[in-house]
Amino acid sequence: MATTVWKTMLAERAQQHLTELIDLLRIPSVSTDPDRAADVAKTAEVVRQRLLTAGVPKVDIVPTPLHPVVIGEWPAGDDKPTVLIYGHYDVQPEAPVELWETPAFEPTIRDGKIYARGASDMKGNLLTAIQGVEAIAEANGGQPPINVKFIFEGEEEIGSPNLRDVVRNNKERLAANAVLSADGGQFDFDTPALSISLKGLGGCQINLRTANTDLHSGMFGAKVPNAVQSLVQLAATFHDKDGRIAIEGFYDNIVDLTNDERSEIALVAEDDEALKAKLGIDSLWGEPGWTAREREWGRPTLDMNGIWGGFQGEGIKTVTPSEAHLKITCRLVPNQTPEDVVDRVRVHVDKHRPPGSTAEVVALPGSATPFAIDRDNPVHKAAEVVLTELFGKAPVLARSGGTIPATGIFQDELGIDTVNYAWAMPGSGAHAPNEWYRVEDFFRGRVGYAALIEYLDENLGKQSS
Amino acid sequence: MATTVWKTMLAERAQQHLTELIDLLRIPSVSTDPDRAADVAKTAEVVRQRLLTAGVPKVDIVPTPLHPVVIGEWPAGDDKPTVLIYGHYDVQPEAPVELWETPAFEPTIRDGKIYARGASDMKGNLLTAIQGVEAIAEANGGQPPINVKFIFEGEEEIGSPNLRDVVRNNKERLAANAVLSADGGQFDFDTPALSISLKGLGGCQINLRTANTDLHSGMFGAKVPNAVQSLVQLAATFHDKDGRIAIEGFYDNIVDLTNDERSEIALVAEDDEALKAKLGIDSLWGEPGWTAREREWGRPTLDMNGIWGGFQGEGIKTVTPSEAHLKITCRLVPNQTPEDVVDRVRVHVDKHRPPGSTAEVVALPGSATPFAIDRDNPVHKAAEVVLTELFGKAPVLARSGGTIPATGIFQDELGIDTVNYAWAMPGSGAHAPNEWYRVEDFFRGRVGYAALIEYLDENLGKQSS
Repeated sequence: MATTVWKTMLAERAQQHLTELIDLLRIPSVSTDPDRAADVAKTAEVVRQRLLTAGVPKVDIVPTPLHPVVIGEWPAGDDKPTVLIYGHYDVQPEAPVELWETPAFEPTIRDGKIYARGASDMKGNLLTAIQGVEAIAEANGGQPPINVKFIFEGEEEIGSPNLRDVVRNNKERLAANAVLSADGGQFDFDTPALSISLKGLGGCQINLRTANTDLHSGMFGAKVPNAVQSLVQLAATFHDKDGRIAIEGFYDNIVDLTNDERSEIALVAEDDEALKAKLGIDSLWGEPGWTAREREWGRPTLDMNGIWGGFQGEGIKTVTPSEAHLKITCRLVPNQTPEDVVDRVRVHVDKHRPPGSTAEVVALPGSATPFAIDRDNPVHKAAEVVLTELFGKAPVLARSGGTIPATGIFQDELGIDTVNYAWAMPGSGAHAPNEWYRVEDFFRGRVGYAALIEYLDENLGKQSS
Repeated sequence: MATTVWKTMLAERAQQHLTELIDLLRIPSVSTDPDRAADVAKTAEVVRQRLLTAGVPKVDIVPTPLHPVVIGEWPAGDDKPTVLIYGHYDVQPEAPVELWETPAFEPTIRDGKIYARGASDMKGNLLTAIQGVEAIAEANGGQPPINVKFIFEGEEEIGSPNLRDVVRNNKERLAANAVLSADGGQFDFDTPALSISLKGLGGCQINLRTANTDLHSGMFGAKVPNAVQSLVQLAATFHDKDGRIAIEGFYDNIVDLTNDERSEIALVAEDDEALKAKLGIDSLWGEPGWTAREREWGRPTLDMNGIWGGFQGEGIKTVTPSEAHLKITCRLVPNQTPEDVVDRVRVHVDKHRPPGSTAEVVALPGSATPFAIDRDNPVHKAAEVVLTELFGKAPVLARSGGTIPATGIFQDELGIDTVNYAWAMPGSGAHAPNEWYRVEDFFRGRVGYAALIEYLDENLGKQSS
């Protein structure tokens, strides 16, 4: 195949592609906001049209109870390998609006960066995938050299609550050798990254109750249990004094980082002092025996996300509260499941709630299975080669303490790995004001997608059937 | 003096006095509600007019930064004893409105009870004092047989923030042998009560901070302190596992209940099982070594009134919170001061806040010094005799776990004891919907005030000068 053909195409179409990105960024597809459901739906339709324009012969909008999923199929032949390109077309809310230098949904280019909500997370990445595949298909005579499928959801920013059902109901249609996830990023301006592990997530809310009504602290404070006090006593039992999670069996069966992995992680260790200075704290915290990076990337956590109970107004109110609430999420590593972890929290709460209190543990939606790639996965290895050529240096094998539900879903439902293949930058304000995406990365990302498709055809095409 | 004269007067004026109460209860003098400041001011004026109508020669409305204080002086002669009658004309808010059977500010009589906000707390009691003194003054030829002063504030329901300054600035004018507080009640329908101790109050808010911003739990939860977790760890150190307050020096210098006092309290012990059943809890709680009643009436407490931090909405949010807050009030017994107790909390917090956190302790307004009457106080003894005669049985010497700032203020500023002399019933919904006051108690209360004034003249008049 003539590599120069699609490379020239992409170079010539740069401005046109950038205009497409600007147009896509103008639509406020905020999935958390019920008032913007129509904008989310409109974005799904724009994405569908863009796939059709690229030449994808079959593109459907699959409805869900909330926001639709766009699925496209571009077959090249049963004897060819297949990749499934994943992404999302929804974005985070833009609040706090007043901190944006230019409006969130009026994309503005300054200093080589395009500023807009969704620029780096991930409308830019989404277009690089479509535009890259379009170019190589055109250069290849109207279809890509391998089978390419697309799945773009509209609920990633709310935890992908309906993605699992859609994938489960479309298993054959989505079958592939691997997923390429366009939701991710580079290591820094000059260095690509391949994500090799993501944490799972299991969350619950603890509703603790004592008396059947709030009481006057003067009459009752000295003699009946106080729900706020009972909750803090209970919550203080979740960790031991050193920071290790004290829930029975929490660490059972988990796979500890190997010495090789620890060495690998040490290569990209964070500067603890710089981190403390940046965050304004005088000490870090966490499970002993592991470095901060190791804890972030390889150790499970129990995070208290919110607490409330009793009087929260100005001044004084002498109430003995009768209920108090705590929200918890646990970040999980391989061999842990959200269901099991929430069950263990429930058992712990039943055992440790103070006398005179009841406590229900309600599992929260948004759970995710942990993900770790098979390092021998041929698509992962192909991506490593292509990125090294594209950037002139090998990708950092990055882990993340974060969670992308999709990766666990593809693993569970389709039995395939996800290769994170994308161009956002750390610190680009993905969920913050003034989100940005480098124009240079956008242009290069398109090349990255075309090059990987080409490489997979040339190197995997033969073995696959 | 002809006792029969004022008794007949009070009997004849019963309906007229009840109508006055109904009119007074119609005014929504809710001191917490800025929108009702005019109603509070109007009530002060109505009270002033009622004192003038009774014959009190000098009545002033003393402004404060918030709601005014009504002060009246009815001299009988420098050779006579003096009582200062205290009360408040403000009321609690009526929320939750939907739970009232008849509207809070449309007084309704059912089954011998008058239902309205402020009926038992304490517009009914306030009128019994004025109407009782009026009757005996009239029977006595136009002035009471002893010096009677009145002080009615409009901020009791918000913690009497300005009463201390008013008392301090009017020391000579308010000088008396004792205060009679009309803010209180009987032991039960047939039994009077004299309150002999009230707890003090000291409150503070703890503002705990970790990082300088909320963080993504996936990136940071495993490695930096979490403000909610740090706060629960800190808060869990305020009590030991048995329920004793673990703040250094908290119990220093306090006066333990004597064996005599414990025996006295045991006579009015509460039924623990009934209390648990009523509140729907399976165990009581509190400092070991003391009964529930002893703790309520005679032991200091540290009550957690409210807590909040992080995400409190629906569902899941994977945030590592950077701030969390706790509200605390301590109920105090003699020899404790609000300032000292808040200082001790501050020292404890500084010592026990987890690494990586800062915590400021802000004292809250509404503090109060504890109060215990001198059991030999002649006005207290007089009240005991008069109540015994009025009810046909001796008053219960009641203590309270609650706080009335006024009693501590009169003790501190005027150096005099407060005798709680009033007719509200336990369980009359003082701060709840469907507050009520028995018409029978209202009528008898007026007699109680006239009888006590008469008794003080006959028994204290000689010794005093």
